[in-house]
Amino acid sequence: MLVHLSKDSIVNALQRVSRAVSPTSPIPILTGIKIEARENEMMLTASNLSLTIQCTVSRNQSFSVIRAGGIVVPARYFSEGIRKLNTDLVTLEIKEHLMLTVMSGHSRIRLCGMDPENFPVAVHHDHRPFNKLRINNALLKSTIKQVAAAASTSEVRPVLTAVSVDCNNDSLRFIATDGIRLASKTIPTENNENNSSTKILIPAKILNEVSKLLNNDDETIEIEIAGKQIRFTSKELQIESALMEGTYPSIANVIPRSYSSEIIVDTAQLLHAVECVTVLAGEKTIKLVASGDALELLSRTAEIGDVQDAVPLIQMSGDDFSIALNGKYFFEMLRYMDSERVKIRFTGKDGPVVIIPEETESAALFLITPVRTQN
Amino acid sequence: MLVHLSKDSIVNALQRVSRAVSPTSPIPILTGIKIEARENEMMLTASNLSLTIQCTVSRNQSFSVIRAGGIVVPARYFSEGIRKLNTDLVTLEIKEHLMLTVMSGHSRIRLCGMDPENFPVAVHHDHRPFNKLRINNALLKSTIKQVAAAASTSEVRPVLTAVSVDCNNDSLRFIATDGIRLASKTIPTENNENNSSTKILIPAKILNEVSKLLNNDDETIEIEIAGKQIRFTSKELQIESALMEGTYPSIANVIPRSYSSEIIVDTAQLLHAVECVTVLAGEKTIKLVASGDALELLSRTAEIGDVQDAVPLIQMSGDDFSIALNGKYFFEMLRYMDSERVKIRFTGKDGPVVIIPEETESAALFLITPVRTQN
Repeated sequence: MLVHLSKDSIVNALQRVSRAVSPTSPIPILTGIKIEARENEMMLTASNLSLTIQCTVSRNQSFSVIRAGGIVVPARYFSEGIRKLNTDLVTLEIKEHLMLTVMSGHSRIRLCGMDPENFPVAVHHDHRPFNKLRINNALLKSTIKQVAAAASTSEVRPVLTAVSVDCNNDSLRFIATDGIRLASKTIPTENNENNSSTKILIPAKILNEVSKLLNNDDETIEIEIAGKQIRFTSKELQIESALMEGTYPSIANVIPRSYSSEIIVDTAQLLHAVECVTVLAGEKTIKLVASGDALELLSRTAEIGDVQDAVPLIQMSGDDFSIALNGKYFFEMLRYMDSERVKIRFTGKDGPVVIIPEETESAALFLITPVRTQN
Repeated sequence: MLVHLSKDSIVNALQRVSRAVSPTSPIPILTGIKIEARENEMMLTASNLSLTIQCTVSRNQSFSVIRAGGIVVPARYFSEGIRKLNTDLVTLEIKEHLMLTVMSGHSRIRLCGMDPENFPVAVHHDHRPFNKLRINNALLKSTIKQVAAAASTSEVRPVLTAVSVDCNNDSLRFIATDGIRLASKTIPTENNENNSSTKILIPAKILNEVSKLLNNDDETIEIEIAGKQIRFTSKELQIESALMEGTYPSIANVIPRSYSSEIIVDTAQLLHAVECVTVLAGEKTIKLVASGDALELLSRTAEIGDVQDAVPLIQMSGDDFSIALNGKYFFEMLRYMDSERVKIRFTGKDGPVVIIPEETESAALFLITPVRTQN
């Protein structure tokens, strides 16, 4: 292998694939990054078995592959070495067997590598995709941020650590719940092929990684589902993950059909008030009181103090109400809400509170089960 | 107490005094910040007993003290609470005994406090200062960065965790050593009073804190030494610390009087090359080889690889030489060097390497003892 390229292009690719490296893996090759140079292109790949990220190094005028080849190098030393280089032009060369030489200006780093043949290959390619669709990057990113936070982080019911995705003709519905809160959002898709409706479970962790890798808001990403694998493909990036197996609980009966009160408030004002009243750490339960022309928020921590804040009600129908919620969950739910105003529906003392972004009313819905308090 | 002030002014003061809070102290009052409002001024104070920082809240047009008073509040909750406030105007009020109310817009935070009478008082005021001088902030800051890194971090010889400061008529000489490396720098002082020569030991940790607090490079800071205390006073800030007791070792015989070779190199180029060859972590020993027109730097780590880099020699006198050093120490020494070029003097195979910033030749000197290697 002999490749000339710019330092920036390789640093960018490294930043992206590094998210899939498992630095403490007992399998040495998984602590590495695979470098492959073919005619006129170079790819970096990292994998922790459940997630594989491959990035094509962007070709600019300083890029050229003189001799093809491949090697797996220790991720940490390779990344740090590249970052410490002083000049913008870098040469990667394999002169000796399983030894990568990085040259730049006066600097020369030689790294002992591993055989790329032993690097795990994603199994995806064996299956014909039975679903292939495209989504706008920004839309997918905001949907993941809104929904994935509601997935469980506990392994007690592994299926709840996934986001359930219903793939339909021209839309995807994302659902996540940890038993206390629930988030659901439906988004349109483009260019569907093989339109069979299907329901898949994507680990929330993987979706969070995907959302971090989607840089260009204006572009679209291609999603292919085949066998037990899902693949996200954008211009330079390919992310592949195993789907989770299992049966996701039905949420049809969880969503309340009626409500006794509804208020409309400004999302940013509410978010800020929730942030303020959850400041006395340790105290996660906050109380909401809707009455008159304001929604009052309160929390109290023994021996430390108490906080209160209020947001004006833009609209209210039904009776005054008072309810206690997990403030941290409520905050996370409001944080990525893409609507200037939210509707909050009260469904009774022990019923879930329903939060609906006013602008995307039919597409998104959030629930949070109240905390039972003594008074 | 009843004070109106801007959020920014209190956030700034909090950031500075927070460095002296001991969040895990078994003495509850030391986990707090003392707030004192007097006629037309308000001070925040934090102390971990060895370091006390007091900051006067800057008075702008929104500042007014309506009623004097004082309280000690939990540092963490107070800081977080203030930061979460949405509006720029804040009111602090003590309505009930030992209870601080923070009001801003719709938000109200009440914090249980402690009696300010129980907050430790720095003992400084009892002694007449026997040394009082002024130094430019930027100069003091760079001197601390250059010298304090050479102090020991091990408690085996506590005296070496301090920086020794010789206070003379019109200058201060800072010396630090951990037995492997040594740094010494002399700087001029202004407005000396009570000019008795004296030698004091300031814990390196305290000096590092002081350097972080010196914001305005153009201003000067007043230093008073009295009894076993040192006090740094700038416009809004007062930092007080206990001096360390003990006898600092004499360094007179440590500094070599002659050398067999001397090279001059560009500081930035050398710093970069040292950073590059120390990239394979775990390998701290680097080899320097001066010969021909270059200083070559090398390091090798078993099973990982090797790195080499080179910097051109601007000037060389004496014989070629080759020596092994701790690369991390060498890097730290070069990092804050305020000279475009450095002289490196070789004093024999086992003698210390001497590094002298070319521009401040007589004022600063750095030593590093070589690592003994097999070849």
